[in-house]
Amino acid sequence: MVARTVDLRSDTVTKPTETMRAAMATAEVDDDVLGADPTASRLESEVAKITGKEAGLFVSSGTMGNLISVLVHCDIRGSEAILGDNSHIHIYENGGISTIGGVHPRPVKNNEDGTMDIDSIEVAIRDPRGELVFPTTKLICLENSHAKCLSAEYTGRVGELAKKHGLKLHIDGARIFNASVALGVPVQRLVQAADSVSVCLSKGLGAPVGSVIVGSKSFITKARRLRKTLGGGVRQVGFICAAAFVALKENVEKLDGDHKKAKELAEGLNQIKGLKVDIAAVETNIIYVDIVEGSKITAEKLYKNLEEHGVLVMPKGLSRMRIVLHHQISSSDVHYTLSCFQQAFSGMHQENGSYSISTSRDVSYS
Amino acid sequence: MVARTVDLRSDTVTKPTETMRAAMATAEVDDDVLGADPTASRLESEVAKITGKEAGLFVSSGTMGNLISVLVHCDIRGSEAILGDNSHIHIYENGGISTIGGVHPRPVKNNEDGTMDIDSIEVAIRDPRGELVFPTTKLICLENSHAKCLSAEYTGRVGELAKKHGLKLHIDGARIFNASVALGVPVQRLVQAADSVSVCLSKGLGAPVGSVIVGSKSFITKARRLRKTLGGGVRQVGFICAAAFVALKENVEKLDGDHKKAKELAEGLNQIKGLKVDIAAVETNIIYVDIVEGSKITAEKLYKNLEEHGVLVMPKGLSRMRIVLHHQISSSDVHYTLSCFQQAFSGMHQENGSYSISTSRDVSYS
Amino acid sequence: MVARTVDLRSDTVTKPTETMRAAMATAEVDDDVLGADPTASRLESEVAKITGKEAGLFVSSGTMGNLISVLVHCDIRGSEAILGDNSHIHIYENGGISTIGGVHPRPVKNNEDGTMDIDSIEVAIRDPRGELVFPTTKLICLENSHAKCLSAEYTGRVGELAKKHGLKLHIDGARIFNASVALGVPVQRLVQAADSVSVCLSKGLGAPVGSVIVGSKSFITKARRLRKTLGGGVRQVGFICAAAFVALKENVEKLDGDHKKAKELAEGLNQIKGLKVDIAAVETNIIYVDIVEGSKITAEKLYKNLEEHGVLVMPKGLSRMRIVLHHQISSSDVHYTLSCFQQAFSGMHQENGSYSISTSRDVSYS
Amino acid sequence: MVARTVDLRSDTVTKPTETMRAAMATAEVDDDVLGADPTASRLESEVAKITGKEAGLFVSSGTMGNLISVLVHCDIRGSEAILGDNSHIHIYENGGISTIGGVHPRPVKNNEDGTMDIDSIEVAIRDPRGELVFPTTKLICLENSHAKCLSAEYTGRVGELAKKHGLKLHIDGARIFNASVALGVPVQRLVQAADSVSVCLSKGLGAPVGSVIVGSKSFITKARRLRKTLGGGVRQVGFICAAAFVALKENVEKLDGDHKKAKELAEGLNQIKGLKVDIAAVETNIIYVDIVEGSKITAEKLYKNLEEHGVLVMPKGLSRMRIVLHHQISSSDVHYTLSCFQQAFSGMHQENGSYSISTSRDVSYS
Repeated sequence: MVARTVDLRSDTVTKPTETMRAAMATAEVDDDVLGADPTASRLESEVAKITGKEAGLFVSSGTMGNLISVLVHCDIRGSEAILGDNSHIHIYENGGISTIGGVHPRPVKNNEDGTMDIDSIEVAIRDPRGELVFPTTKLICLENSHAKCLSAEYTGRVGELAKKHGLKLHIDGARIFNASVALGVPVQRLVQAADSVSVCLSKGLGAPVGSVIVGSKSFITKARRLRKTLGGGVRQVGFICAAAFVALKENVEKLDGDHKKAKELAEGLNQIKGLKVDIAAVETNIIYVDIVEGSKITAEKLYKNLEEHGVLVMPKGLSRMRIVLHHQISSSDVHYTLSCFQQAFSGMHQENGSYSISTSRDVSYS
Repeated sequence: MVARTVDLRSDTVTKPTETMRAAMATAEVDDDVLGADPTASRLESEVAKITGKEAGLFVSSGTMGNLISVLVHCDIRGSEAILGDNSHIHIYENGGISTIGGVHPRPVKNNEDGTMDIDSIEVAIRDPRGELVFPTTKLICLENSHAKCLSAEYTGRVGELAKKHGLKLHIDGARIFNASVALGVPVQRLVQAADSVSVCLSKGLGAPVGSVIVGSKSFITKARRLRKTLGGGVRQVGFICAAAFVALKENVEKLDGDHKKAKELAEGLNQIKGLKVDIAAVETNIIYVDIVEGSKITAEKLYKNLEEHGVLVMPKGLSRMRIVLHHQISSSDVHYTLSCFQQAFSGMHQENGSYSISTSRDVSYS
Repeated sequence: MVARTVDLRSDTVTKPTETMRAAMATAEVDDDVLGADPTASRLESEVAKITGKEAGLFVSSGTMGNLISVLVHCDIRGSEAILGDNSHIHIYENGGISTIGGVHPRPVKNNEDGTMDIDSIEVAIRDPRGELVFPTTKLICLENSHAKCLSAEYTGRVGELAKKHGLKLHIDGARIFNASVALGVPVQRLVQAADSVSVCLSKGLGAPVGSVIVGSKSFITKARRLRKTLGGGVRQVGFICAAAFVALKENVEKLDGDHKKAKELAEGLNQIKGLKVDIAAVETNIIYVDIVEGSKITAEKLYKNLEEHGVLVMPKGLSRMRIVLHHQISSSDVHYTLSCFQQAFSGMHQENGSYSISTSRDVSYS
Repeated sequence: MVARTVDLRSDTVTKPTETMRAAMATAEVDDDVLGADPTASRLESEVAKITGKEAGLFVSSGTMGNLISVLVHCDIRGSEAILGDNSHIHIYENGGISTIGGVHPRPVKNNEDGTMDIDSIEVAIRDPRGELVFPTTKLICLENSHAKCLSAEYTGRVGELAKKHGLKLHIDGARIFNASVALGVPVQRLVQAADSVSVCLSKGLGAPVGSVIVGSKSFITKARRLRKTLGGGVRQVGFICAAAFVALKENVEKLDGDHKKAKELAEGLNQIKGLKVDIAAVETNIIYVDIVEGSKITAEKLYKNLEEHGVLVMPKGLSRMRIVLHHQISSSDVHYTLSCFQQAFSGMHQENGSYSISTSRDVSYS
């Protein structure tokens, strides 16, 4: 048995706080399908305000938020969306925009910092004169943060490009609050150029469930209908929203601490012979750690060893792991984690053993 | 202002009870996407057990439950589903099985009692020899209860027909507990012939949110993946499931009372000159009331009048309304409602007035 | 071996005439994808003129014509098309509008004469106020002729209904020239109310291949693009169009003869004890013949017997067959056919024998 | 007016020969939907034999051939196809595999020679353990030739990779005969590793219309049905097939001459100061010509000037053009073309003029 668990696989693993539980227990609710649940409305308005958009809509997950947003912008058969070839929508959402929505994705190379070159985006936009054989480009999707944070300036330039070509811009804001805190720029500024944003509340902010998508009123009207089509329209949804509201109010201020702990842990891991971390790339709460070739310990053994000590990380391919900090990881957890890694790479003589999590390819996703 | 509200539009309007709120506040939860939330698992197992199926999966709504079930059974391009021409899936779910799932619906006439003639179903099944021009029939869908309750015997016969032709049988069990109580037959028996059932917990049972779909293990594995595609895979979903679990444990026994109150109210309304209720059709908690031609009061004025007294009903077409009882409607509410109707049809002198809810056609849906 | 073949299964079985072959051999052609094939353009203009529409587009088949037309009118995700529950589009086109196009079909009962009650159509049109749970009705589809001929007056009334609700009207004109000849009303008048028509040239008119869809210029522009998506955009298509042009010029005048022969054959068959034909229903070149219960000969044996004498008919269900006349069936063929039927029902003693075409259900389709 | 036209835009622009016209005029035909057209069957068998596959199916176009092939291999909702990011299927077919078929494309970088790195393909194959969030990889698509020719060895390695992961391999054989001739390797060997091939007959081979897809018998059975769904099932298709059969028999031997003329023209163009051709890349009948920066004449003016002399080329982006040789371009045409280019780049004083074909981005496609 494991005495202590430090779950660093994702910031989605947080447990709701007492305040959230209390909020759920007392939330005012109503049938949100027949009319409007007041607590849901309050949450939707709040996120709309924070992002500077007209209206908001609560959805069950970031995946649903992205799916609905892309499908609303691409509501005509034959639409195409430009998105990063390494983006969550393209890689980790079951291909839903195509398999459920019939939208043709046009992936553009993601740079290491999560951007796509503006020129590459422009080249990917279909020439309307070729419409006999081309799908119609309708949308550009960005993700912030994706690895590193996208600046307001970069996003603005993509927004201008979109406008120039009559396209919409959607931002997958899975960790938009982390980006805002890391860059010291208000969320509203970061998404100013966007026509829609999917704002996740159950990652860094620690809500048990939910995202809010925001955009114009007409966008939200269409999104509400599509949410019903997907079965995402729920009845007394206010409970869930009440907890998410607490997350929004109480946990944004904790993100800076997460980032600092991430930096500290990254630096500690980078000291270990056999591991390598690009410290400069650690801008928020996410660390990518490479096991260098010729390391004394294989990735499999390392993960097994860590897991035996209660430290959970997310394998990303053969020799890379992802570590994510969140508000329920303490400084003490960081130190404990570091010591577990150090032990694994020092004196220990591992015997061969079968380890259930094969690490050959990437299966993580949040 | 209205002193008292008696909301009879649907049994989805119930507010969660104190027990439910308490259960939510203390629920044990975990990341249901990365692994398994224990409270969700408990609810899923419980519903699987009640329905006699191998496994269950929590979904946000009955619509999502039906959509996923139909799409899993019809996973190959070119599939067709036979379903009632008046069924919820065909009429009230945005056409999602086609517009999102590409499934071709083959509606068969619903009789007044909610059945489809067995012969008509068989005629609708496509002859495999015509597969060059025919879609492939994969599925038959029933709804229980839909208007009246489907007997275990009828469902069994449809199940045999499905088996004979190598088809699957799905039951939209939006109000399957009501049917079970009204017929005095266990749920398990009512759905024995089905390969999948969508069991709603937020209608008569009063859970704030959620349904559970049940079926074989391999069905549920596929359903889980499709739920993720739709964005219905959520994180610490246990809260929602905790309340639903209470609904399941505490509210089934209240359904019989709802049915009795429905009968009482139906008989009362049928006494009113100008209204007509098919008393024999009131088997559960739903009443359809017709305003007879030549009535002293128009439908519009009637609804307006009732609403002014806090009594909400659901217009269904030009001269019909639907009334649904639930556990938060007391005997006193029933008497109050009756008296409001009586008043509306007796002495009152209505002035002409514009009334916002036009009643020309059917827009209700749950 | 069969000495003589009289193929009455469909009017699609005709062989091209010498004039058609000569036209193909000399047709002026060009790359119709890169630019425009002059012979295709000429055919498209001619059909547009005959139907009174702005523009036309050659397509490979009536199925492609219907598929493209429905998809162009229903180009937004969430669209619904109202169509006859017995119509070719709903029954015999693989469910393509859903399985390929994601359009939700809303079938309305077809009367014996091929009409749908105007009231039933209106009831099926979705109320925009229910758009949260309803697909959006975008289109009504008629088929002329479908069994009997639809009058210009009926079509006009459906067109008015469509306009009143902001819908489009598509006519599957698989045999619109037959209807025109039978009713003595110009094609243009019969389709005046329609926004699009799929005009088949390879049925009664005897072209080897092809249909032309007609509508407004903007409809045709969208249709051309969708045709390319489906792979129906072809290169030097002029050959095919040249033959179709001949069909249009030479064979319309033969239809009246086909209808007369159909009438003659129908009356002859109706004389045979054991067969029953609704003579009044034989308005064009199609006859439905019922084998009456208690007949001396089973359907299977009858078909086998006829086939042995070279007479081919199309089984439609257990005890019904379809017979279709066309310009390559002579009066002599009609008399020969009649005599084969008479023989089959008179003296002959059939031994039991296995017959390959099972007739239990309907697999014909054109 | 232009005295002479040399159309080098594509090898799809050829006019049918006298032999083809004669073959069409005498072709034996039948209803290919109700049964089988003998001429179509003969063509299908012949292409199946040449490619070493079990069966073949005539389709209207290469686009239809690719669409059907991809959709048959990816017949289950949630499928993904790996294909070149610059491939015809991904770029020039309207996104049909997604917009019509719901298949999720996973583009992998195309190298200059048309290959994708084997490692990159393998990385793109989804790990089945991640199936909760990943679409299911079902298919790899190659294109031969795409720019340069793919060797049998390369294709074989991709085939092994596909087998290893339980995937299918489809080859878009738009110019597979050109590749065969250029490499001196039989077609059968080039496609040996493939589960399906779309073989175009209307490009280099000069048939007016048509492609044949080949594969296993069960693949073709499914393909035939899907062809009907798309509306690509046609009646007396034998005419079209007769011309295509002639193309197959007579024109393969002309390809080597096309390639030699391409080489000659490429070398001549490369001599012109202001133009640049990668001679080594000219393996078949296609030449890409770059207008070097600082050239005396702009692309727009060049195209205009050429067009005034009857020489048609295909602009590909801002400063690149594509030139395609075919059997109706003579040696004399090649010399004339060269002299037109030389004139354009030498003495000529161009006045400014508006030129209708803007060349800013790529709109060509065959």
